[in-house]
Order: sequence, then C-alpha cells, then structure tokens
Amino acid sequence: MNFSSKLLENAVDAFASLPGIGRKTALRLVLHLVQQAPETSEEFADAIVKLRKNIKNCQVCHNLSDEPVCEICSNNRRDKSVLCVVEGIRDVMAIEETQQFRGLYHVLGGIISPIEGIGPNDLHIDSLIGRVQTGEVKELIMAISPTIEGDTTIFYISKKLRDLDLPVQLSTIARGVSFGGELEYADGLTLGRSIVSRIPYRKDE
Amino acid sequence: MNFSSKLLENAVDAFASLPGIGRKTALRLVLHLVQQAPETSEEFADAIVKLRKNIKNCQVCHNLSDEPVCEICSNNRRDKSVLCVVEGIRDVMAIEETQQFRGLYHVLGGIISPIEGIGPNDLHIDSLIGRVQTGEVKELIMAISPTIEGDTTIFYISKKLRDLDLPVQLSTIARGVSFGGELEYADGLTLGRSIVSRIPYRKDE
Repeated sequence: MNFSSKLLENAVDAFASLPGIGRKTALRLVLHLVQQAPETSEEFADAIVKLRKNIKNCQVCHNLSDEPVCEICSNNRRDKSVLCVVEGIRDVMAIEETQQFRGLYHVLGGIISPIEGIGPNDLHIDSLIGRVQTGEVKELIMAISPTIEGDTTIFYISKKLRDLDLPVQLSTIARGVSFGGELEYADGLTLGRSIVSRIPYRKDE
Repeated sequence: MNFSSKLLENAVDAFASLPGIGRKTALRLVLHLVQQAPETSEEFADAIVKLRKNIKNCQVCHNLSDEPVCEICSNNRRDKSVLCVVEGIRDVMAIEETQQFRGLYHVLGGIISPIEGIGPNDLHIDSLIGRVQTGEVKELIMAISPTIEGDTTIFYISKKLRDLDLPVQLSTIARGVSFGGELEYADGLTLGRSIVSRIPYRKDE
C-alpha cells in the first residue's frame, strides 16, 4: 500500500502485526480510530499498555490475574477440593462461562508436545503436584484436548501422582455427541465413545 | 465472556469497539499482545496515540497527512493541471497504488446523499471550486462510485463549474469489463456501457 503519511503507515503496521489482521483490515481499523475523538485512541492505547504492564499470572493456578492470586483462587465460596486442569486461560473462560463448575483451576500453560519441543518441565505440572500434596485436593478433572498430546499429558500426570502415592481421584470431561448435534454428522470416534460411555436414562433429565 | 481480570476485560473491550472485531477475536489479539514483550504493546499503543494526535488533513487536497500540506500536493514533479476528485483517502491510496496517475488529488470526504443527510456543504466542494478558480487546473477526473449518489455529486460539481463559467475539462474514469473478467459474468449495466463506450482497436495495445 502506498501511504502518503508515515504516521498512518506506522499505525497500520502495528495493527497488521497482530495475528489474523491483514493490511487492508489494519487500514480500516486505523481510519476508524482517526475518525473518532482523540480520547478514544488514548483510552484504547491506555488499556493495552496498562494490561501488559500490570497483568500477572496467578501464583496458585497460573491463570491471568490483576492480583498476585486470582479472583477464582481467592474466592472462599469455591470448592477447593476439586481442581480442573486445563491447557490455557481460554479454557478457564469457556468453563467459567458454563457456570457449571464451582471448584478451582490449574492452568498447565500447554500440553506435552515433543514435536513443538514442549516437555513436562515447560508446563506447570510441578506446581500442580504441589497443590495435590497439600492434601486439600480430592479430585482432578482433566479438561484437556482429546489428542495424542493431550492423552500423553494426562498419562504423565497420572503416572506422577501414582509414583508419589497421592490418593487423588482423576477424571476426564465427558466426550460424546454434542447437544443439538445430529448423530449422522458426529465423527465415528465420538459416536463410538458415546455408546461405550452410555449413561443410564433418568426420567428427570 | 467471563473475565477474572479487569485489565484483560478493558483491553478486550477496547479491541471489540473497533468495527468488525468481535469479542472472541478481540480476546485472541489481546492474548497475543500479553504473550509478547512489554515493548511490543508500548510501541503498538504509541503508534496509535501519535497518529491520532499528529495526523492532519492536507490544507490543499484534504488527504491525510503528517504535514500541513501532504506529500503529493507538495511534490513538484507532479502535474498540477490535473486533479483526480475522489470520495475518500482510501481511493487516493488505491489510485496511487496503480502508479498510473501523476496529477494531484482532491478528497471530497464523501458524496452527496440526502438519505444519510450529507449535502454539498458537508463536502470539500467549495475548496475544489477554489482550486479550479486559480486557473492552474485544466482537467478534473471524477473518480467517484457509479451510484445515484455519485452521479448526483458529479452533476452538482459540473453544474457549479458551468454556473461560474470555469473552463475546465471534466472526465470520469472508464467503466467496463475488468481485465481478467469473463464477459458472461459481467453485470448487464457494465457490459452495456462497455459496448457504448467502445474504444478503437490499436495494434500496440
């Protein structure tokens, strides 16, 4: 693109450096900001700088947090005996959105992936074991992607817990045909698993 | 979305206020910035604030510019006798990109649209007439969208020039079947116009 303005070019470059934003989209966003009041751009910039400067990882669960310990971990009304183990903070948000889980989380920061060079020591597994060792945790729900890497990660953690003789219940989230999903469009693996892990019918469901 | 962090929520809100950016995309962009070095976020924010604070509209052609008069208008090697009249600065960029035009521009800032409440006085038409009145301009190329509003705008300008008895050549950009376009897929209006405005065949083309 041919910019007659260096300022414009710099701002477009900044937006275009973000994932999934091309230069045409970047230009559209920048021109939008130019057409707004100067305060809009200042508030926009301010939100980003403040975030990057002050955001922390929760010391307990490694979720993103404004404080050293996140809102979820410091909430006394949550069940400290159940930990939901997830790959990243987006998973925490998705599960919180459901309002079906009242326990705490543990963010691994990824999953074991030899191809990408991610080993167990790159993940927050030691601190997970540490939390279990306090004796307060009764169950770990592994809400990890059902991939080879995910299964490897779950296996690694379960082995480590067994080796240390830690009596904690391990579970994985249920896999099956999604609500509103049609049987014929479900993939074979999911459909097969949903039959193997069938659940007794209850009238009140 | 359920954010455990106010800082994160503010940054996502900021991105989601941009046109075409939903909250899921906004979150993805924000998490990208969080994973980069703090300098990346600072440079990003800096580019936006500097742009909004220092960007000007060229006093001559109303294009966006870093200086009171833009690079194109202050370029002595450009032909000052031909003005290309466009709706917005994106049109300037698109035409500059072609490298086929060596004259100057005039950005109207929109087109006459009674439905959207945009009248001639909301556009930079008076300053266009003023530039023609200096006597330096020999031709105005109207590179305006071929819509009813666009045609109205062209008609308004041509009438104003005639009323003031300003002897300037008015032209519009050629309409026709685009290069690489197949005849059968061209819309009827375009195809019809391309036959009416046919051009003599030259061997060297």
